[in-house]
Amino acid sequence: MTNTNTLPKYSSGVLVMLPLIYVGWADGILSPRESEIILSKIKEYPFISTIEKTQIKSWSDPGTPPSEELFYEWKNILLDHCKHSKNSAKESLIESGLLLAKSCDDCEDPTYWASAKTKEVLNDLQKELGIANVELQSHLLDQEEEILNSDFDVDVMLKILDGDLHEFKSKVKTLLSYPEFKIKKIPEKETYRAQILKWCIALAEQDLGSLSYPKEYGGEDNMYKYIALFETLGHHDLSLAIKFGVHFGLFGGSVLALGTKRHHDKYLKDIGEMKLPGCFAMTETGHGSNVRGLQTTAVYLKEEQMFEINTPTFEDGKEYIGNALDSKMATVFAQLIINGVQHGVHAFLVPLRNEEHSLYRGIKVEDCGYKLGLNGVDNGRIWFDKVKIPKENLLNKFGDIDKKGEYQSSIQNPSKRFFTMLGTLVGGRVCVPKAGLSATKNGLTIAIKHALKRRQFSTTDQNQETLLLDYPSHQMRLMPLLAKTYALDIALSKLAKSYVVNLGKDMRQVEGLAAGLKSYATWFTTEALQECREACGGKGYLEENRFADLKADTDIFTTFEGDNTVLMQLVAKGVLSNFSREFHDEGFIAVLKMLSSQWTTSVLEKNPIAKRNDSSKHLLSSHFQLAAFRFRERKLLYSLSARMRAYIKQKMNSTEAFLNCQNHALTLAEAHIERYVLESFVEQVKSTQDVASKNMLKNLCRLYALSTINKHKGFYLENEYVSPQKTKAIRRLNIQLCSEVRKQALPLVQAFGIPDELILAQIAK
Amino acid sequence: MTNTNTLPKYSSGVLVMLPLIYVGWADGILSPRESEIILSKIKEYPFISTIEKTQIKSWSDPGTPPSEELFYEWKNILLDHCKHSKNSAKESLIESGLLLAKSCDDCEDPTYWASAKTKEVLNDLQKELGIANVELQSHLLDQEEEILNSDFDVDVMLKILDGDLHEFKSKVKTLLSYPEFKIKKIPEKETYRAQILKWCIALAEQDLGSLSYPKEYGGEDNMYKYIALFETLGHHDLSLAIKFGVHFGLFGGSVLALGTKRHHDKYLKDIGEMKLPGCFAMTETGHGSNVRGLQTTAVYLKEEQMFEINTPTFEDGKEYIGNALDSKMATVFAQLIINGVQHGVHAFLVPLRNEEHSLYRGIKVEDCGYKLGLNGVDNGRIWFDKVKIPKENLLNKFGDIDKKGEYQSSIQNPSKRFFTMLGTLVGGRVCVPKAGLSATKNGLTIAIKHALKRRQFSTTDQNQETLLLDYPSHQMRLMPLLAKTYALDIALSKLAKSYVVNLGKDMRQVEGLAAGLKSYATWFTTEALQECREACGGKGYLEENRFADLKADTDIFTTFEGDNTVLMQLVAKGVLSNFSREFHDEGFIAVLKMLSSQWTTSVLEKNPIAKRNDSSKHLLSSHFQLAAFRFRERKLLYSLSARMRAYIKQKMNSTEAFLNCQNHALTLAEAHIERYVLESFVEQVKSTQDVASKNMLKNLCRLYALSTINKHKGFYLENEYVSPQKTKAIRRLNIQLCSEVRKQALPLVQAFGIPDELILAQIAK
Repeated sequence: MTNTNTLPKYSSGVLVMLPLIYVGWADGILSPRESEIILSKIKEYPFISTIEKTQIKSWSDPGTPPSEELFYEWKNILLDHCKHSKNSAKESLIESGLLLAKSCDDCEDPTYWASAKTKEVLNDLQKELGIANVELQSHLLDQEEEILNSDFDVDVMLKILDGDLHEFKSKVKTLLSYPEFKIKKIPEKETYRAQILKWCIALAEQDLGSLSYPKEYGGEDNMYKYIALFETLGHHDLSLAIKFGVHFGLFGGSVLALGTKRHHDKYLKDIGEMKLPGCFAMTETGHGSNVRGLQTTAVYLKEEQMFEINTPTFEDGKEYIGNALDSKMATVFAQLIINGVQHGVHAFLVPLRNEEHSLYRGIKVEDCGYKLGLNGVDNGRIWFDKVKIPKENLLNKFGDIDKKGEYQSSIQNPSKRFFTMLGTLVGGRVCVPKAGLSATKNGLTIAIKHALKRRQFSTTDQNQETLLLDYPSHQMRLMPLLAKTYALDIALSKLAKSYVVNLGKDMRQVEGLAAGLKSYATWFTTEALQECREACGGKGYLEENRFADLKADTDIFTTFEGDNTVLMQLVAKGVLSNFSREFHDEGFIAVLKMLSSQWTTSVLEKNPIAKRNDSSKHLLSSHFQLAAFRFRERKLLYSLSARMRAYIKQKMNSTEAFLNCQNHALTLAEAHIERYVLESFVEQVKSTQDVASKNMLKNLCRLYALSTINKHKGFYLENEYVSPQKTKAIRRLNIQLCSEVRKQALPLVQAFGIPDELILAQIAK
Repeated sequence: MTNTNTLPKYSSGVLVMLPLIYVGWADGILSPRESEIILSKIKEYPFISTIEKTQIKSWSDPGTPPSEELFYEWKNILLDHCKHSKNSAKESLIESGLLLAKSCDDCEDPTYWASAKTKEVLNDLQKELGIANVELQSHLLDQEEEILNSDFDVDVMLKILDGDLHEFKSKVKTLLSYPEFKIKKIPEKETYRAQILKWCIALAEQDLGSLSYPKEYGGEDNMYKYIALFETLGHHDLSLAIKFGVHFGLFGGSVLALGTKRHHDKYLKDIGEMKLPGCFAMTETGHGSNVRGLQTTAVYLKEEQMFEINTPTFEDGKEYIGNALDSKMATVFAQLIINGVQHGVHAFLVPLRNEEHSLYRGIKVEDCGYKLGLNGVDNGRIWFDKVKIPKENLLNKFGDIDKKGEYQSSIQNPSKRFFTMLGTLVGGRVCVPKAGLSATKNGLTIAIKHALKRRQFSTTDQNQETLLLDYPSHQMRLMPLLAKTYALDIALSKLAKSYVVNLGKDMRQVEGLAAGLKSYATWFTTEALQECREACGGKGYLEENRFADLKADTDIFTTFEGDNTVLMQLVAKGVLSNFSREFHDEGFIAVLKMLSSQWTTSVLEKNPIAKRNDSSKHLLSSHFQLAAFRFRERKLLYSLSARMRAYIKQKMNSTEAFLNCQNHALTLAEAHIERYVLESFVEQVKSTQDVASKNMLKNLCRLYALSTINKHKGFYLENEYVSPQKTKAIRRLNIQLCSEVRKQALPLVQAFGIPDELILAQIAK
C-alpha cells in the first residue's frame, strides 16, 4: 500500500468496472442515485482496492463528467479488448469487465475474476443500475449506420407478420371475401342487425365459433386461433367482429373460464354452434369502470336452493349489453349475498328468453338505440326484478356454496378472488386492439393507395401535378402511422403469445401489458383513422370510401373492455409496484420507499457525452433509441414515486396521493408501454432472417422510435437527456426516414394482405 | 471628450435606450440580429455619444448577458422613474426613455429629448426590433399576480361573448327551440333530407335567408347578422346549417358578389325566399383544392351570344356539391374560353332543372350517397355535356365580354383577378369555424355536465364516490378545451368584425386570418369533440347523447371551404411575404432576403434572466405569455426564411424550396394563428369592464396561454427560450389553473347560452 501513487490508472479493480461506467456515461443514465448505488456497492467488494475505489468514485460523479479525451480513452480500451477477445460478440458488460481485469498486467489474484460469486454480485449491480443487458461489442460499434433502402418481398413480410397463423388467417380472409359476406351500408338498425346475426351464424357453421373451446365440445382448444380470427374479422364489418366476440368470446368465454364441468357439458356445444345466443351482463349504468361496485344482487335462498337476481334501482340496470336483444341467456355479474353476508361480485347464468323469444317474467330489456357506430350490434339495457335461478347457475369455479349453504372459495382473499375472476377477461383486451389495428390497416391502405393516385398542384411549370404522397407534409402525416402500425402489430402478437402461454397460470404480468397495449393501440387507431380520413379530403368523407364506418365502429374501442384512462392508471400502479406484488390501496408504500430512497429531484446532471452526440450513426442505432425509451420510463417512475412519497409523508392516504399524481402516472404508463413496443420491434428485427424484410423492418422500427422521441422531445430536453442540437438532428432524420419509407409505402400496405373485397373503398381501387 | 472616464454609467444617451434594452433582455428577444440592428441604428443617432454607444454595445451583446445585479439595477432605475412620473401608466417604452434622458443630471441638450424626430426614429427602432408596444410600467409591474377565484354572472358573460348580436342570437335560439325544430335521428337519407329542406324553408319564411342581401331584395344588408345566424345554427342539426349556408351563403352569395345588377334584380329575391334553390358548383373530382386547375369549360359562342358549358372527362365532374338534388340552378365555375383563348376561371349561372324538377338536357346529376355525417344534406356530382346558357348568365362583376365579343376586366392581372373572385368566398371561412365552435360548445356542455353528475370510484373509505370532474386527469382533459373554446370564440368574433368592416375593400389581411383561424378552429373542434366523447365513456357513444352527430357532422369541416393543410400553407406564405405584398410563385425572394439578411442560425443565445424566471407572477403575466407566443412565431419565420433562402441559392425554384420546408411552414402558420388568438384574448380581457367576468376571462386566457406553451415546450426548450425549471413550473401552474377553472366549469358552459332543447343529450339533463 506504499506505492499507491504509482498504481496504473487502469488496474484490475478499475477495469472490471470500466464497461459499466462507460455505458453509464454513454447512455446518460449516471445520476446521483446511480452514483450512490455504485459507491455503496463497491464498498463491499473485496476485489477492488481502496485506491481503486477512489478512482471509480471520481469517475462516477454526475457533477463532474469525464472529459471527452478520457471518455474516448475508455472507449479505445474497450474496443481494443473486443478486437482481441475471441467471443467478444457475445460477451456481456460484466463478462468483458472480468476478462479485462484478468488479463491486466497488475493482476495479482486472478481467482477473483473467475469466481462465480464475483460475477453474480456484478450482475446484481448492473441490474440495480438499470443498465440493459447488452453485449459490450454491439454497444461500442453502433452497428446500424445508415438508412437502408430495401426492396422486400410482400409475401415474405406478410408471413413474418402473420407468424404461425398465416395459413389460417388466409383462409378466413378468403371466406370473408365471398359474395355472401359482402359488406353493405344498411341505415336502418333492425335490418342491419339481422344481417350481422346471419353472418355470425354463418361463421359458427364453419366451426369458427368454438375455436377456443375444448375439443369435447366441438372446439379446437386453440385460443391463439380465436385471437387470429377476431383480428381478421377486424378487416370486415366491425359489427360482426363485436357481436361475434360478445357471444363466443365473452359469453362463451365466461361459461368456460368461470364455470365448471356441469356448465360446460350443458351449454358449451350449443354456444359454439350459436344455438344458445348469449350476452355478458357486467357493466351497469351507475358503474361503468368500477366493476367492484356493481349493485345488482344475487341473494341465495337456502330453502329453495335458488338465487334471486335483482336490480335495486333503475340506475343499477345493466347497460350497453351487446347481443341483448338476440340472447336467450346472460352471464350476469352480481353481488353474491348469503345469509345477509356479501361475498363480492360473482357470475350467474340467467335465462332471458324462452323458445319463442319472449322474455321471462321479471326481466326487462330495452334497446340502447342508435349508436355512434356498430349499429349492427344489438346493445341493450337489462333490469332484473327478483328473478329466480337455480343454484347450479352460479359459475362456480372460484366461489361456490357448499351443501350446508355456506360460501366456499379456493381463493381466500376477496380482492384476489375478484381480480382472478376479472383476469379471465383479459382475452378481450388482447383481442380488441388487434381488431382495431386491422381496421387501421384498412384505413392506411386506403389513404396510401389514394395518395399514390391522386395528384394536386404542380411544383414545376410542367403540367403533371404532384402526387399527394410526394408532399413532405403528407409523408409526415402517414409514414409514422405506418411505422407505428407495424410496431403495434408485432407487439400485440407478442402479447397474444404471452397470453396464450400463460392461460390458466399467473396472468398478472400479461394483464398489465394487455391493459396498457389495449389503451395505447386503440388510441392510436382513433388517431390514425382520423388522420387518414383527413388525408383523403372530401373523398374520405363519403361512405363509399369506408372511413365513415372504420372511424365510427372503432371509436368505442378506447372505452370498452375497460376505459383507456382507467386502464392506464392500472398500468402505472403495476409499474409502481414493479410487477412484483399485487397493488393494494395500502400496500405499496414499501415499494415507494425502495424506489425513491436514494433519489433526488435532479435525476441526471448534464452528461456532455451522450447528450450531444447527434451523429446519424448514433441516432439511428437501436441502442440509443432503446436507451432513450428506457430512460423515459425510469425517470418518470422515479419522479412519480418520489412525489407520492412526499404526499404520503404529509399523511395523505395512498389513493389520494395517487390521485394527486394522476397525470404523471398516465405519462408513466405510456412510457412503459412504448418501451415494451420498441423492445418487441427491435427483437423482431434481430430475429428476422430474410435480409430485405429485416432492412425494411429496421427502417420502420427507427421511424417509430425517432418519431416517438421527437414527440416527447419536450421531456427529453426538460430532463437534459439530449441537447437542442440533438433534437434538431432527430427531427431531420425523422423527415428523412419518412421519405425513405414512402418509397416502399405501397408494398408495405400490400403486406397487410387485405383482399380487395375487404378494402372496398372506391378511391383505393 | 477628455473626461470620458468620469461619465456616469447612466448618462442621457444611455438612459434613452434603457427601457428597450431592459425589455430586450427581460423578454429574451435579444439575438445577434437584434443586437446588430441596435448597433447599426444608433450609429446614426446624433443624440448618443461615442462613449455611450460603446456602453450600449456592451449591454446588447447576446454573448455576454448582463449579470443579475446589473439587470436589477436597470429595473430599479426604471421602477423609480415610474414612481415619480405623473403619467407613467400610459408611457410607452420610448416615452419613458425620453423622459429619463431629459431628467438626467448630465443632460446638456434637452432639445433632443423633446424632438418629434428623435421619438420617431426610436419608435422605428422598437418596431424593427419586434418589441411589442407595451407601457413600461405594466411591463415592470407584472401586475397580474395570482390565480383569481371568481364568481361571475352567467348572463353578463354571455353578453360579452355575444357582443352586439346578443338579442338577435337569443331570438334565433328561441326559434330553434320550438317543437317544429326538434332534432331527431332519421337514419334514411331521403327522409332526413326532406326534413332539412323543410327547416331551410321555415328559416326563409322568418326572413332569415336574405339577411346579408341588400334591402331592395328583402334583405337587411347585414352580413354580421348572417354570420351570427350561421353560428347559432351550429347548435342545432349541422345538416341544416350547411344546407342553409350552401344555398343562401354560397349560391346566393356568389350571385351577389360575383354578379351585377341584372343578376341581383332577376334572382336575389327568389333566392332569399328559397323559391330558387341553388348550388355552388366549384370543386371537381380531379381538382379538390386546386381550384385554379378546374377543367370544366365555358366556351363563348359569339354568333349565338351563348356559352357552352362542358365537362371534358368523367373525372372533371363537379363533386360534393351540396343541395345538388334540390337545386334549380347552379353557380358553375369554369374556364372561360373566347376565340380559343383561355381567360381563367369564371362563374356562370346554369339552370339545372325545370319547374317539374326534371333535369335539363345535357345535365347529369348523381347522388354522392351516404356520407360520414351531414346526411341531411343532398350532396351530388354534376356533369355538363355541352350545355348552352345565355351570355347574361356570366356573373360578370370581375370579367365580362363586350359587345365586340372581346374579354374585358377591371383587373388586368389574371392571377389577381382569380384571387379577387375567390376572395368573395372568404365568408365561408369565417362562418364554418364559428358553426364548428358552436357544436364544440354543445359537446363541452354535455361532457362537463355529465362529469359533474357522474361519480366513479371512491378515494376514501366513505361510500360517496368521486365526481369525474374532480379527477385531475379529467380536469386536464376538459379544462384546457374550455379555455381554448373561449379563446377561439373571441378570436373568431374579432375576425368576423374585420371581415364585415372590410367587405368590398382589401381583403388580403382578413383572408389570411380567415384561412388560418378556420383551420386552427376546425382542427380543434375535431379534437375537442373526440375528447368529450371519450370523457363520457360508453354514454358518449349512444346516439341519444349527441356526440355521434356532433362528431360526424363537423368532421368534414377540416376539409371543406379549403383543406386545412392547404390553407395553412397559404397562411405561411402570407406570413412569409409579411402581409405586405401578394405572394407570387416568383416574387418573394426579395422578402426572404430582407427577412434573413442579418439572421444567423442561432437566434437566441442563452439569456439567463428571462429564461430562468419561473416565478408564478412572471408566468401568469400576459406579458410573458405574449412574448413567448411572439417569439415562437418570429423564430419560426426567420428560420424558415433562412432555410428557403439556402435552397433558392442552390438554384431550386421557390415552389420546390417551399415544398422542402412544408412541415416547417405549417408550424409557422400555427404559431402565427396562436399569436393572433392570444392577442385577441388579452385585448378582450383588458377591455372587459365587469370585474368578475374580467377575472374569469383572465384565468381562461392564462390557461389557454400556458397549456399552449406547455404543448410546445419542446420548441421552447430546443430554442433555449426557457429553462427546464421553467417548463416544469409551467406544467405545475397549468394543473393549478385547471383545478381553478374547474370550480367555475358549470357557469362557464352555461354562459354559452345553449337552450336545453338544443343540448338534448340524456346525460346532460
